[in-house]
Amino acid sequence: MVSKQAGVGESRADSAAQAVAPDQAEQAALSFAGVEPKAQVPARIFGSFVEHLGRCVYGGIYEPGHPSADEDGFRQDVLDLVKELGVTCVRYPGGNFVSGYRWEDGTGPRELRPVRRDLAWHATESNQMGIDDFYRWSRKAGTEIMLAVNMGTRGLAEALDELEYVNGAPGTALADRRVRNGIPEPMGISMWCIGNEMDGPWQVGHMNQEEYAAAVERAAHAMKLVEPGLELVACGSSSAHMPTFGSWERTVLTQAYEHVDFVSCHAYYYERGAASLQDFLASSEDMEAFIATVVAAADDARAVNKGSKDIALSFDEWGVWNQEVWNGEENERQQAKGLHTEPWPQAPHQLEDIYTVADAVVEGSLMITLLSHADRVRSASRAQLVNVIAPIMAEEGGPAWKQTIFYPFAEAAQRVKGSIVVPRVSSPKLETSSYGRVDALKAVASWDQESGSGVLLMVNRDVESAHQVRVDVGALAGGAGDAAVRVSGAKVLYDADIHATNSAQEPYRVKPVELPVQVEADGQLAFELPAVSWAAIELSR
Amino acid sequence: MVSKQAGVGESRADSAAQAVAPDQAEQAALSFAGVEPKAQVPARIFGSFVEHLGRCVYGGIYEPGHPSADEDGFRQDVLDLVKELGVTCVRYPGGNFVSGYRWEDGTGPRELRPVRRDLAWHATESNQMGIDDFYRWSRKAGTEIMLAVNMGTRGLAEALDELEYVNGAPGTALADRRVRNGIPEPMGISMWCIGNEMDGPWQVGHMNQEEYAAAVERAAHAMKLVEPGLELVACGSSSAHMPTFGSWERTVLTQAYEHVDFVSCHAYYYERGAASLQDFLASSEDMEAFIATVVAAADDARAVNKGSKDIALSFDEWGVWNQEVWNGEENERQQAKGLHTEPWPQAPHQLEDIYTVADAVVEGSLMITLLSHADRVRSASRAQLVNVIAPIMAEEGGPAWKQTIFYPFAEAAQRVKGSIVVPRVSSPKLETSSYGRVDALKAVASWDQESGSGVLLMVNRDVESAHQVRVDVGALAGGAGDAAVRVSGAKVLYDADIHATNSAQEPYRVKPVELPVQVEADGQLAFELPAVSWAAIELSR
Amino acid sequence: MVSKQAGVGESRADSAAQAVAPDQAEQAALSFAGVEPKAQVPARIFGSFVEHLGRCVYGGIYEPGHPSADEDGFRQDVLDLVKELGVTCVRYPGGNFVSGYRWEDGTGPRELRPVRRDLAWHATESNQMGIDDFYRWSRKAGTEIMLAVNMGTRGLAEALDELEYVNGAPGTALADRRVRNGIPEPMGISMWCIGNEMDGPWQVGHMNQEEYAAAVERAAHAMKLVEPGLELVACGSSSAHMPTFGSWERTVLTQAYEHVDFVSCHAYYYERGAASLQDFLASSEDMEAFIATVVAAADDARAVNKGSKDIALSFDEWGVWNQEVWNGEENERQQAKGLHTEPWPQAPHQLEDIYTVADAVVEGSLMITLLSHADRVRSASRAQLVNVIAPIMAEEGGPAWKQTIFYPFAEAAQRVKGSIVVPRVSSPKLETSSYGRVDALKAVASWDQESGSGVLLMVNRDVESAHQVRVDVGALAGGAGDAAVRVSGAKVLYDADIHATNSAQEPYRVKPVELPVQVEADGQLAFELPAVSWAAIELSR
Repeated sequence: MVSKQAGVGESRADSAAQAVAPDQAEQAALSFAGVEPKAQVPARIFGSFVEHLGRCVYGGIYEPGHPSADEDGFRQDVLDLVKELGVTCVRYPGGNFVSGYRWEDGTGPRELRPVRRDLAWHATESNQMGIDDFYRWSRKAGTEIMLAVNMGTRGLAEALDELEYVNGAPGTALADRRVRNGIPEPMGISMWCIGNEMDGPWQVGHMNQEEYAAAVERAAHAMKLVEPGLELVACGSSSAHMPTFGSWERTVLTQAYEHVDFVSCHAYYYERGAASLQDFLASSEDMEAFIATVVAAADDARAVNKGSKDIALSFDEWGVWNQEVWNGEENERQQAKGLHTEPWPQAPHQLEDIYTVADAVVEGSLMITLLSHADRVRSASRAQLVNVIAPIMAEEGGPAWKQTIFYPFAEAAQRVKGSIVVPRVSSPKLETSSYGRVDALKAVASWDQESGSGVLLMVNRDVESAHQVRVDVGALAGGAGDAAVRVSGAKVLYDADIHATNSAQEPYRVKPVELPVQVEADGQLAFELPAVSWAAIELSR
Repeated sequence: MVSKQAGVGESRADSAAQAVAPDQAEQAALSFAGVEPKAQVPARIFGSFVEHLGRCVYGGIYEPGHPSADEDGFRQDVLDLVKELGVTCVRYPGGNFVSGYRWEDGTGPRELRPVRRDLAWHATESNQMGIDDFYRWSRKAGTEIMLAVNMGTRGLAEALDELEYVNGAPGTALADRRVRNGIPEPMGISMWCIGNEMDGPWQVGHMNQEEYAAAVERAAHAMKLVEPGLELVACGSSSAHMPTFGSWERTVLTQAYEHVDFVSCHAYYYERGAASLQDFLASSEDMEAFIATVVAAADDARAVNKGSKDIALSFDEWGVWNQEVWNGEENERQQAKGLHTEPWPQAPHQLEDIYTVADAVVEGSLMITLLSHADRVRSASRAQLVNVIAPIMAEEGGPAWKQTIFYPFAEAAQRVKGSIVVPRVSSPKLETSSYGRVDALKAVASWDQESGSGVLLMVNRDVESAHQVRVDVGALAGGAGDAAVRVSGAKVLYDADIHATNSAQEPYRVKPVELPVQVEADGQLAFELPAVSWAAIELSR
Repeated sequence: MVSKQAGVGESRADSAAQAVAPDQAEQAALSFAGVEPKAQVPARIFGSFVEHLGRCVYGGIYEPGHPSADEDGFRQDVLDLVKELGVTCVRYPGGNFVSGYRWEDGTGPRELRPVRRDLAWHATESNQMGIDDFYRWSRKAGTEIMLAVNMGTRGLAEALDELEYVNGAPGTALADRRVRNGIPEPMGISMWCIGNEMDGPWQVGHMNQEEYAAAVERAAHAMKLVEPGLELVACGSSSAHMPTFGSWERTVLTQAYEHVDFVSCHAYYYERGAASLQDFLASSEDMEAFIATVVAAADDARAVNKGSKDIALSFDEWGVWNQEVWNGEENERQQAKGLHTEPWPQAPHQLEDIYTVADAVVEGSLMITLLSHADRVRSASRAQLVNVIAPIMAEEGGPAWKQTIFYPFAEAAQRVKGSIVVPRVSSPKLETSSYGRVDALKAVASWDQESGSGVLLMVNRDVESAHQVRVDVGALAGGAGDAAVRVSGAKVLYDADIHATNSAQEPYRVKPVELPVQVEADGQLAFELPAVSWAAIELSR
């Protein structure tokens, strides 16, 4: 999760000057005429990520002493927000954390579980939450589990043990241990990540691409001997800035093609890490290039293997994260002389980024990008869920609330159903120093034939200007004809202060407001998207 | 044990037409005049193989509820047949099974042993048999143990632990555990296989040749630090059809030369896997080429290491096996979508091939081939012993009986003693599509100076014709002179229906009958070998 | 510790004849005029080594039944000699031993500790001493611990566990286990060796340079995540005679540069292993070349990594050791046929070399060499401490005494303080067959500004002749001027019989005697160094 290599835009001041104000008079237009649906919506694209990190687990989803805590110690207020967020699938238990994790530590009677040190985040791990508990939480949250195994300090043998414990039919030693721990039924976890960011020099037990290719091929083969129906995720590069990006994917997927179903992609963006605010707003351009590179590597691996299946992308860490904070802390710690004598902190306040309106617009644009590639991006996990670079914040013993970024995710997760349709876009242009001249507007839509409803998601990434938009929306509903589609709701997220945030004291300082949409004589929709805004228009037949 | 690569003869129908009927009038002749003995008979060449697979162990050698079961739960009827078969040495506990095995699971009080899943054969392993039990069985059977260690999910450290448990003098932790488990004396197991078929992509924890070369060199070095007198077997290729066959052996043996004594060879043949019935009958031609290739690789490794010892061949899986059945089941399982919820079967009916007369003749020819190369093939294990591709079948709670293939093995194991002598053969020819023009007749003999007795083993591999044979047998007994050698017995295995088999109902449908042998005026033996037949002539001074 | 490759000087007889007697009339001169101090004395340069080997631990530092044993079972007589020897830091618990060691075996109640087999030295290990006990012993001895982790049969995961047990703040599972074992405080061990001689084909779990480079980089990275202030030692070559010497260091240090602080160097010399007695006396020439090679490799690694820190040398095995004895025993054992049935010996008499005057002079010259390179050799461990190739001998139930080699080490360890100064030397020459024409005299000095005292260490390596020496000593004390420096003591170690030794019966047969030193009119010191002698002149202001 840490990318020390991420050298994006060190010289923001220099390049900000190059951004050119677009012509305000220029109109944007979206059209669905003659556009074929791209793919059915993959349920897991609205995934999230819970890592044993900071207060994501402890004081996040689990806080036995909290007024809203249920009999398992889970915060009900957080659970309610998770449901409202619409999360479908949650990656667990890491991230970097998993590379030193012993899954069995988090099972059995809580009072017998060992306290460990977590090297990844320099914290004390009480193991009061573990796979059994997370399984119970997931059932309450209605979410699928995507489980990561430790390939840093462990390997094949322990992965097989964990698989038996988690999914095994009663009657064998480890499955019976699960039964004794109170879960008689196999957990039925299908999707497994074989390690985390194994290319990262910060990762405990990191490997070079040949080493990992061999390791993941072996692990995936053996796991599929047990359960051919598993969906296995090989680690891709930790970021597009890794020196082996692309080459890593090609090597790993070529060797493990037969047994692997997904390759992971991780991408974080943040304002201070970008060449300019305008470049930050255009971060989804980077994600587009990222996807293209990994798809090319995956297809090359398929060709070399003379295979028929395509390897899907699991964008299992994405979002806005100001990495400077953690990297700074970590670098400082690494410079320290002498030995530690103090205990490591337990569930410290780590990575608790507070998100702005601009961050929400960027996350909205990233979600639009992922959906636009849903034919290959068949799983994604916004990182993370609670407190740690998260849409949901929770105070110890206090309230939980939504950050700005909650809204674009929730709208997509709740409304995007059926088929994904990527409209033709005619947009005013922006100048960026990292991506050149790009569209101000970015949009994706979905239409669900069954319920006769759809949604159009859009961002205006322009830091300077609002833009008028016209949408030829009729074709979205297939042969239904323009007249048949009506606007059933419309909202927009923006603020005069693009750095406005929510807080415990002011939890609704930033939230979507109604977007006025005019239906033109020709049936087209017309509206204005403010500068730096995200919007959703709900449609129905 | 599974070779998905084994693409031998997909087009049997096409090539069958090419087989040319040999001239029935042509006579075959065998001569020992001027032939030097090839080697002393290596005791382990009459080895077999007991894997935790199907009903080989459970319901095979071990069935506590069986009427004939002794105090250890071993079937006495099976034990009696094993002794009659003449087996000298038994490889244990796998095969593919060993690559996920934890040896300690099968030790200690039976009620405390964990139930595991066997990934290799998709079965539930009760661990009611283990090394302690197999040691007790082996003492009753009078057989040496050839023990395989797990290099799939384990490695060096566990191999050393197992070695201490098995062979260690009392006084150290693991040896004392053995003593507590009721075996005070070191088991004295000399021959150890370092993994099984580690080149096979089906193998749990398979490796490429460089990985395995490093792993086996390290393991063998450390094991010999403990016990310099061990005889260690490095995995060779899983079959001659592996893409790295030859290259694998060269790499592995070159790196591990100093510490390794044997290289394993595995070869299975079956009628439907051959280009034609005639090709199937000529399968030993493939084994000849196999041996030549591996010997060349081993000698190259010796040369590179400037060594003096030669690496021997351990043909530790050989026989007739219709691999299509298992591969079909396994492929079907691997295609399955979704997750398993049902428990895996325990001791299922797997690989219970029923052998024909033709199969017995092929196995007879393979045994002749192995004996003919006894200078280098110093160990062999016919796979397997009971129920699973086995000479001995055993019904649950019911009788045990001999398959057709029992006879050629038993005759060799009981009669071949002293020196191996490979006669000069003049034989009618056969046309095969896989091996070209080959001898119809194949033969080998032994002579034991001490007891003054010998045996001549032969096959007529011709699917069409019987052949008259003349044998100049006197020279076999060294300087004893023709007159001194007499025929003390002669048997032949054949049937008008070459696909005839034995069964519980008809256990002696196929068995050897007396072979009429005429002693000519010049002292030569004359007889006729029917088409598709195996024969043995016992000689004494 | 065993170098079968060490082919130094098989033909001693041949080359002895080439040694040319130097001109006895020639005078030697040492001068400090204009010489800058080389480095501050690194405390760890006076380190030693305690391995679980022979009677170094059992019957050496630990012998509960001994009359002098304290409440922990430590021999007080040995402890007293260790303090007198001046040892600062002790490497533990191996050596080859560590490559099969499980650190946890030596912790907890003694009666529950498992008895193991030590493959490296073919001995039974009772585990009655372990890290807890050695920590207690080290506090009594006043010595730092330099701890080696097992990279032979173990790896990263177990190293991290050991690190937590040893140094962890109470509150986590393994640190709490240490507390329960009676050591509430973290042990605070800074210096860790990541494996031992991993290039040696005799080493359990040996690796090639690429394998070890990856393994040590991973282990060091993870250990520094825990404790950035650790000082980590990567294995260098087992000796300068290894075929990969130099290349190994370059590969390993280049890959692990960021996380490694030291590279280990091991060098043993012995009279019968040298081309001649004169060559043996000149062994420090080999050490000079050794240091130069490793420094070059380390600096190359720094350059490739564009790094700023220099990797230091940890000469953590050095001394005189007649390797023929052990290698002979080991070779004999490896030739044995059949299996062992006898238990392995416990604390046998192994490697109990008895040292001569010549050995002491060589060790004196090696210490001078290490001190002369103290800018890079920042740690050294003379191997070993008690009984096993040791300066201290201890009889079971009997006395302890000093070997000849005790004296040069003790004088250096007790007197060398402050700055190291390497004088300019003008010396008569010696002819050697291994090193060419070299100085008869070798010297190093130190001066401690604070206490106003210094010491000058010298050897006369000439097997034939005594040499007159003049020393211009004034400049050693910096600006203090000649007159200000006076001789406060002077001793010399030599004997008419250069093979004289000490023993329990005659413990002081060999010991230093007073060296007559004349102060000349010009303030220079003048004295004679006998052939094959070591000397120390103590100076003060």
